[in-house]
Amino acid sequence: MKMLINVPETVVPDALRGIAAAHPELNVDVATRVVVRREAPVEGKVGLVSGGGSGHEPLHAGFVGRGMLDAACPGEVFTSPVPDQMTRAAAAVDSGAGVLFIIKNYTGDVLNFEMAAELAEDEGVQVATVVVNDDVAVTDSLYTAGRRGTGGTLFVEKLAGAAAEEGAPLDRVAMIARQVNERCRSFGVALSACTTPAKGSPTFDLPPGELELGIGIHGEPGRERRAMMTSHEIADVAVEALVEDLRPDGPVLALVNGMGATPLLELYGFNAEVHRALGERGVPVVRTLVGNYVTSLDMAGCSVTICEADEDLLRLWDAPVRTPALRWGC
Amino acid sequence: MKMLINVPETVVPDALRGIAAAHPELNVDVATRVVVRREAPVEGKVGLVSGGGSGHEPLHAGFVGRGMLDAACPGEVFTSPVPDQMTRAAAAVDSGAGVLFIIKNYTGDVLNFEMAAELAEDEGVQVATVVVNDDVAVTDSLYTAGRRGTGGTLFVEKLAGAAAEEGAPLDRVAMIARQVNERCRSFGVALSACTTPAKGSPTFDLPPGELELGIGIHGEPGRERRAMMTSHEIADVAVEALVEDLRPDGPVLALVNGMGATPLLELYGFNAEVHRALGERGVPVVRTLVGNYVTSLDMAGCSVTICEADEDLLRLWDAPVRTPALRWGC
Repeated sequence: MKMLINVPETVVPDALRGIAAAHPELNVDVATRVVVRREAPVEGKVGLVSGGGSGHEPLHAGFVGRGMLDAACPGEVFTSPVPDQMTRAAAAVDSGAGVLFIIKNYTGDVLNFEMAAELAEDEGVQVATVVVNDDVAVTDSLYTAGRRGTGGTLFVEKLAGAAAEEGAPLDRVAMIARQVNERCRSFGVALSACTTPAKGSPTFDLPPGELELGIGIHGEPGRERRAMMTSHEIADVAVEALVEDLRPDGPVLALVNGMGATPLLELYGFNAEVHRALGERGVPVVRTLVGNYVTSLDMAGCSVTICEADEDLLRLWDAPVRTPALRWGC
Repeated sequence: MKMLINVPETVVPDALRGIAAAHPELNVDVATRVVVRREAPVEGKVGLVSGGGSGHEPLHAGFVGRGMLDAACPGEVFTSPVPDQMTRAAAAVDSGAGVLFIIKNYTGDVLNFEMAAELAEDEGVQVATVVVNDDVAVTDSLYTAGRRGTGGTLFVEKLAGAAAEEGAPLDRVAMIARQVNERCRSFGVALSACTTPAKGSPTFDLPPGELELGIGIHGEPGRERRAMMTSHEIADVAVEALVEDLRPDGPVLALVNGMGATPLLELYGFNAEVHRALGERGVPVVRTLVGNYVTSLDMAGCSVTICEADEDLLRLWDAPVRTPALRWGC
């Protein structure tokens, strides 16, 4: 598999150097692998820190900035960052108002962030944590006990980030983050496998003419394989799984997310089917984001996330955000 | 080749329905295939219209909005839109201040936009045109007499769009668009071929272990094929071609663009090499955009565009823009 890289061993630091070159509004420490909002710590503001394995860009470094994350800790590809990154990030963003760790539910991430939370508390930083587990496709998975954290992470980071920017205290920011996670559901579909730089060949084998329903963001198995389906049919399966699990009784925010290699032309067509499928189930969509936000390297496919949003969450969604990958209102 | 579609025949209208669902700030006429900024015509403002074959998303519909295009006309995949779309768009956005057609240099696009300009003039709309031909890789190509229009289109649309938003008259907006085109150069590289929905198989054959230097955005041939190269080497070839042709004597804006299927992790790593290669040649970079902006369906690969920018163009670049794919400052 051909890749636009130098050597597999340096893809993460190479990307960090590229992020630093493109985004002077971020402080990128390539050596320690921590990406920090330049103006951190922001006086009186709760600091938001997330992180996880690389290969899901723009998640998380692309979400660092005003109104979203204060820092991100990228691990090796599909590998949890280490506690030292997280404690450095916490120290860099803590203004005295405390820090929220936003953790996708993968065993390694949870263990490392929990250890980092203890270390940071020892250093006098007040830490709260939220574990994101929005993926309805499977209960346990290759790297997870319980549900996986996927597209819902974007909503947790945006909405809790907006609350923090407004000056909410740590307990409230953490409460909102947990509430958002509880109101998010995701379902993913793979049309092709992804290839990690280290392996150099597809991480699993998906035959021509088949897709995998309920895929994770590391190529870990989903619910089932089926003969290739239309966009209409895929939207019905995904939306049915989401609505059955969430049972929303109000409007939702929707993320129609590309896994990395699916053209935007196809994603927008799929978005039309997702809107149709939600409409047929009586679910109003008040905001929609279409694009590659929570990716899986070069995997072809998509995921759908819905987040039930009352007026307060909708206001937080519309609040200004200024990050490399998500920006509006400022 | 698996695709996230219903049937190949409806990919363009399906995507337009999805764009309409995601972006209520746009008026999308699916039947006539015209995407218009909702507040058009804007009183006293020159209207900017672009368009071209689909498959390059977010170009052009993703660049419709405040500070950039007033309307976009998407053709079938890799096929020019028809004059009727362009005259409808011109009529929809003309406030009396005239309309600028921004045309990528492909034979079909140029002929159709020229015909549309005549028809629109007959209907009383004052029309100016600019043909974008920024690709240094080849002189003539499969669909072009002269150089192809590729990544430079983004700079022409953004900078002329900002000038129009400031209230510049038609002749000045057209002059800026032509000036920007003259100051832009692009060079693209393919690691894989793209697959059109209609064909269903790769549009050309690129053997494992080889890349194509100087590729177009429709898979049309470039300069040469070589054994696979590192990101460092590719950046040197691309940047050398750009700098030798443009010979900038001031700072540049840079677009490090993905062709569609290359992960953002790789693009950012490539951006670090592009910055290095420009720095080694004494070219300062004042702004950088990294992402999938001018794509070629599911092609893996990248392109680099530089745009020599004096203080006036830099100010226009930093001016507020609010479109689906590019937004800042508002």
